Amino acid sequence: MDISVRTSPAESARGGAAERLSAMAHDDMRRVDALILERMGSPVPLIPKLARYLVEAGGKRIRPLITLAAARMLDYDGDAHLKLAAAVEFIHTATLLHDDVVDESDLRRGRRSANVVWGNAPSVLVGDFLFARAFMLMVDAGSLDALHVLSRAASIIAEGEVRQLAAKGDPDIGVEAYMTIIGAKTAALFAAAAEVPAIVAGRGREEAEALETYGRELGLAFQLVDDMLDYGGLSDKLGKSVGDDFREGKVTLPVALAVRNADADERAFWERVIRTREQRDGDFDHALALIRRHGALEATLEKAREHARAAQHALSIFPGNTWRESLSDLAGFVVDRAY
Amino acid sequence: MDISVRTSPAESARGGAAERLSAMAHDDMRRVDALILERMGSPVPLIPKLARYLVEAGGKRIRPLITLAAARMLDYDGDAHLKLAAAVEFIHTATLLHDDVVDESDLRRGRRSANVVWGNAPSVLVGDFLFARAFMLMVDAGSLDALHVLSRAASIIAEGEVRQLAAKGDPDIGVEAYMTIIGAKTAALFAAAAEVPAIVAGRGREEAEALETYGRELGLAFQLVDDMLDYGGLSDKLGKSVGDDFREGKVTLPVALAVRNADADERAFWERVIRTREQRDGDFDHALALIRRHGALEATLEKAREHARAAQHALSIFPGNTWRESLSDLAGFVVDRAY
Repeated sequence: MDISVRTSPAESARGGAAERLSAMAHDDMRRVDALILERMGSPVPLIPKLARYLVEAGGKRIRPLITLAAARMLDYDGDAHLKLAAAVEFIHTATLLHDDVVDESDLRRGRRSANVVWGNAPSVLVGDFLFARAFMLMVDAGSLDALHVLSRAASIIAEGEVRQLAAKGDPDIGVEAYMTIIGAKTAALFAAAAEVPAIVAGRGREEAEALETYGRELGLAFQLVDDMLDYGGLSDKLGKSVGDDFREGKVTLPVALAVRNADADERAFWERVIRTREQRDGDFDHALALIRRHGALEATLEKAREHARAAQHALSIFPGNTWRESLSDLAGFVVDRAY
Repeated sequence: MDISVRTSPAESARGGAAERLSAMAHDDMRRVDALILERMGSPVPLIPKLARYLVEAGGKRIRPLITLAAARMLDYDGDAHLKLAAAVEFIHTATLLHDDVVDESDLRRGRRSANVVWGNAPSVLVGDFLFARAFMLMVDAGSLDALHVLSRAASIIAEGEVRQLAAKGDPDIGVEAYMTIIGAKTAALFAAAAEVPAIVAGRGREEAEALETYGRELGLAFQLVDDMLDYGGLSDKLGKSVGDDFREGKVTLPVALAVRNADADERAFWERVIRTREQRDGDFDHALALIRRHGALEATLEKAREHARAAQHALSIFPGNTWRESLSDLAGFVVDRAY
């Protein structure tokens, strides 16, 4: 099998829910984009240059989109949600910059990652800059409670990344530890992005917690599908190069499940390619064959589906409106990326 | 000349002002230390282990000491200053962790730096963790205005670090650009550390600005002396290895001044060792001889003295008390480290 970046021919059709939501939130998102551009500004030329490289690579801005849509669902009529949405994207971008240094990645969404283009040092420092600017945006949003939620999320993300680093190369990490890692490194920011609009809109604990649950469950589903796509899901619209996790010895659910059901020969294979990382030509194809033999991609997808359903269920306490429907559809979209 | 870590025999006598202030702020500092220990806690074992390695290496905790002393000088009777002091130390520690990765340093205060002991990846991530925890502490301190000042400082620090990185290897950086860099990478945090007590104590702009000026000027003096010590000041109590800046091609004021007055031969030398970084045995000694020939260490020290005096002058709007005297003495101490 060819290890390369792939894009699905039916990509645009499947991106429906995210695109519909983007269209609905278009005006808000334009204001968020303007804020992002303004707040990444600096008299030090390398900073906006490097930040723009990442921000423009873009993706779907799914995290700020959640913040914007949740604020609209709650009929929030201030503008703090715009600043919080921009802050969420800055935290995400800072994390990506540091992740690429930590993982020694070469590609990000099919482009050379910033650490390859500019080196590790500027990636670390511009990440710090964006992180600091995220907090300045949160201060401007004016809510200490929202600041608490987002700074706590940032701390949990870092913990999750360290856990992931410590677990690298351990094929026996197991399902539970894996879920703890993605709960921290990915779902915590989704949860915070969804929760903060309830805070600035002055809603009570019940609604804040429902949105937090929505975000967390959506984040888990998102990461599970991402990890699946790294083993050749049917579409790879993120442009993420297939096989990255494998080459880095990062154990995600598809591998954890295949290892759990491995016979002696298979176990020896996983020990070699993951723990000692002595990888040869054809190893990725063999790994994929083992993962498929044990139905690990289907099992991963099923787990993603469960979390997406839990995300949708969490929305049920809110009165039905088009924003609620779109947030619900978004959970479906996150899983549909797998096809 | 031997390029190695040196400690001054008269170290303790000269540390007087900082030690007196530490003794006066002893109870507050114990509470700050307890906060630091508590807030660096994590269920992920590597995090407190690595954080402790840095926090215990310690130094004089000069930044949080400024926050505590300024709060006392203002008769502040709450406890937000303790949280802000701990936050300031966390920001500083996070910056050190990332600096060592950026500079590819081997030693920090005479010990192997964290990136050498644990690798770059944990240093980046634990830095992020401490940075996030700093913001959680600030949120607990309860002042959006203090949060604004400190998050702005964090953003300016990152800008200063990127400027420094961009200027690396340029012997013609000049005095002004150098001062801009240290104003951002060092003095901004000192300024914020000094200003935030005025904010939580509810003082007006005039007092906040006077303390900000005190902190900034003190920070400039501190960095100037630090940079001097890297070229063999008479004492090296920080345990920082002499010659680090030189080997890294980092141009600080002693070099900038020597380059400004260089003849053709000397210029060729600086171009070789700083710009192309082709360094041979004996180059550091030769650099030092040139720096001395042009009186660049004395000129650097004189500049440090001016900034220390400006720091002391900024305190003059406050009524005299023992805390004000100690803050003033601290500015003297910062310069005295040069001897």
